[in-house]
Amino acid sequence: MDYEIEVRVTPRRGILDPQGKAVGGALASLGFAGVGEVHVGRLIVFGLDAASEDEARARVDSMCRQLLSNPVTEDYAIAVRAAAGTAE
Amino acid sequence: MDYEIEVRVTPRRGILDPQGKAVGGALASLGFAGVGEVHVGRLIVFGLDAASEDEARARVDSMCRQLLSNPVTEDYAIAVRAAAGTAE
Repeated sequence: MDYEIEVRVTPRRGILDPQGKAVGGALASLGFAGVGEVHVGRLIVFGLDAASEDEARARVDSMCRQLLSNPVTEDYAIAVRAAAGTAE
Repeated sequence: MDYEIEVRVTPRRGILDPQGKAVGGALASLGFAGVGEVHVGRLIVFGLDAASEDEARARVDSMCRQLLSNPVTEDYAIAVRAAAGTAE
């Protein structure tokens, strides 16, 4: 794999985040004080063969729009890193 | 909130990751080639009031062990950052 891809998918601010609410409530029940609003997102990590970093980023952007995120309620951020031990 | 906390919870290597397998299969069905093994984790973000960065980290570690991660099948990593606009 030429590139290591990390996609962070997070609930859009202002959109209801029931999973975050549940985690926040559970932390309070366990006695953890001073915790602000909790947001829970997804982290998707994989290797990708691509000719260049730009090509890798463009293909992952397409994956995000088609499958990895819900464009109505979620934001995504893509990180692309050359895989260790790969000659450019 | 004094600190911004980010917890990354990822399936432990070698443990079955059915969600990652499903995403990998779906990407292949959509015609995306050159995709390696996919891993899906959780990203938990919140603000935290604490006296110091060390105290914040210790409390979040306790949250991870009690609630945020499954210690049998998952690894977690904690990032602590002073919140913008907060005097130390």
